[in-house]
Amino acid sequence: MRLLKETLERITDIDREAERVARARVNNLAKPMGSMGRLEDLYVQLAAITGEPLPDLGKRGIVIMSGDHGIVEEGIVTGRQEVTLVQTCNFVRGLTGVCALAKAAHAELFPVDVGIVGDCDVPGVRREKVRRGTANFTKGPAMTREEAAAAIEAGIRVATELLAQGYAILGTGEMGIGNTTPSAAVLSVLTGADPAEVTGMGANLPADLMPRKIAVVRQGIALNRPDPQDPLDVLAKVGGLEVGGMAGVMLGCAAGKRPVLVDGFISTVAALVAVRLKPEAREYMIPSHKSLEKGARLASEALGFTPYLDLDMRLGEGTGAALMFGILEAAVSMCREMASFEGAGIAVV
Amino acid sequence: MRLLKETLERITDIDREAERVARARVNNLAKPMGSMGRLEDLYVQLAAITGEPLPDLGKRGIVIMSGDHGIVEEGIVTGRQEVTLVQTCNFVRGLTGVCALAKAAHAELFPVDVGIVGDCDVPGVRREKVRRGTANFTKGPAMTREEAAAAIEAGIRVATELLAQGYAILGTGEMGIGNTTPSAAVLSVLTGADPAEVTGMGANLPADLMPRKIAVVRQGIALNRPDPQDPLDVLAKVGGLEVGGMAGVMLGCAAGKRPVLVDGFISTVAALVAVRLKPEAREYMIPSHKSLEKGARLASEALGFTPYLDLDMRLGEGTGAALMFGILEAAVSMCREMASFEGAGIAVV
Repeated sequence: MRLLKETLERITDIDREAERVARARVNNLAKPMGSMGRLEDLYVQLAAITGEPLPDLGKRGIVIMSGDHGIVEEGIVTGRQEVTLVQTCNFVRGLTGVCALAKAAHAELFPVDVGIVGDCDVPGVRREKVRRGTANFTKGPAMTREEAAAAIEAGIRVATELLAQGYAILGTGEMGIGNTTPSAAVLSVLTGADPAEVTGMGANLPADLMPRKIAVVRQGIALNRPDPQDPLDVLAKVGGLEVGGMAGVMLGCAAGKRPVLVDGFISTVAALVAVRLKPEAREYMIPSHKSLEKGARLASEALGFTPYLDLDMRLGEGTGAALMFGILEAAVSMCREMASFEGAGIAVV
Repeated sequence: MRLLKETLERITDIDREAERVARARVNNLAKPMGSMGRLEDLYVQLAAITGEPLPDLGKRGIVIMSGDHGIVEEGIVTGRQEVTLVQTCNFVRGLTGVCALAKAAHAELFPVDVGIVGDCDVPGVRREKVRRGTANFTKGPAMTREEAAAAIEAGIRVATELLAQGYAILGTGEMGIGNTTPSAAVLSVLTGADPAEVTGMGANLPADLMPRKIAVVRQGIALNRPDPQDPLDVLAKVGGLEVGGMAGVMLGCAAGKRPVLVDGFISTVAALVAVRLKPEAREYMIPSHKSLEKGARLASEALGFTPYLDLDMRLGEGTGAALMFGILEAAVSMCREMASFEGAGIAVV
């Protein structure tokens, strides 16, 4: 738990002086005040995170946390568990959804096995396996408190190393057959929302199985009684290893004062865990898309996030995050390229 | 009017067979069916527009139509009229908002003077001047029917030439101090919405001047009585030269079977004019962002568009369109890079 504790202590507020300077700069660009809307806010946030007037976002990574879930034996999942392993190998081979989008965005992928049941024999998948999948949380806690912390610490380690290698911004993604169920459970506990409000269809679960999925979430919470005031307890009892891993990546970026992209439902739940562990971490996070998965909206609201992209996506893997790099690049380009009123030859009336 | 007439005749439905093939292809990618949401729809639309299974979007242009407005003498505009000319010159110099965003998106800009009062002495601004600004529509029609058609034809010519030069996709942008007012008037007439519902603050018009702006729109419509069934009549009586020019670019792309990006409020109104002239043109158009300008939502709804980006922008110039290139590139990359279920080593259950 030491790395987690130290990392939380390292996370401080974003640079408010850099924020003030960035806002003044954007307000002096030759355009009606505020007319670039949230693109202006993104630029200001990037400047405040990094302390740089023109943040360099050139070297981009997406960390994909993979883990399995004991809960799949409850029959509330359409995919088979081995798909977690197969797709994690496919991240290296460039065959999945996020591979295609990362390629278009000039971002590199870093798949991490934080808790797959099987073993990846493909070079390029980083091994940070905390355990071989979680336990079925309808029969007991998904994992121990130490394992939950270890999953977060795996994410912190990966993020810290990538930042040390010069990655300027990281996205977060995941792969884990069954992981909308524990994510719904974590979100329900942390927000107090009823499981029926946050449990969605995941990978096209047939409607007639939805009541069963909601019941499983309800049962897991009732049995394990996670403490809503203790995010690590919630993650351990009803969460997932990849949720912890993603929270760790976010905390690692916040500690390293670099921006981190939040993806869809699972990633936003991980962001909520991270923010409950350290509220200051929130300002280092940048939401991306409005996932169609049912709980995503509530998870975003709990964080005060309004995602930027409206594409009805619900694949995960970091696909939404991958689409944001271009928007962020545009936000920085705005301040790098645009003239001030004076430079544009327009007198301010 | 001959070029306009011929162009409208050349516009036919998108390629429904290519659309069917593209949909089948996307459904066979290794992901839960439909989980890439509207990114899948974008790919299918691009394939159906171009007839190409993997549309090449490499060479990208943004056509920026600039024009002035007699209506500015009514005192309902914050900017001074000469800013239209200054900023049009600044498009060539790379100093404006769309310049910055286009640079990040690797798109080239093509500024066109379709009706600026003054003259651009900067090489790189294409001269297609139909007249030196519109007339004040509270005193008579903004322009003649012939001039409205000529503005559209200027856009058709520009688009057709760029497509012939190998540009694979065009965005539309505009510059015209005062142009939210005629755009509101056109939208009001074409949709039947009350002027108060579609008239917004433009470039930060103070709230106390808003009633005056709405009254001007109302007055222009009452005086000129444009025929809602005749889009050219509406454009001529209460529209703008750059609105016509943008509609022309859209029609030119539709005739050439290439995708065209719609930007914010002014551009969406131009799209509505184009679609009212030729309904089949709609399928060649791709919306981009939800502009914050008041009438934008109703204009999008009138076209059945749901924009993809939620950034509260309201600058115009084609800034929203510029942000869409990356999303479209990702949509094509999805189908180029992702494995089918078979290729991913996942059995379909």
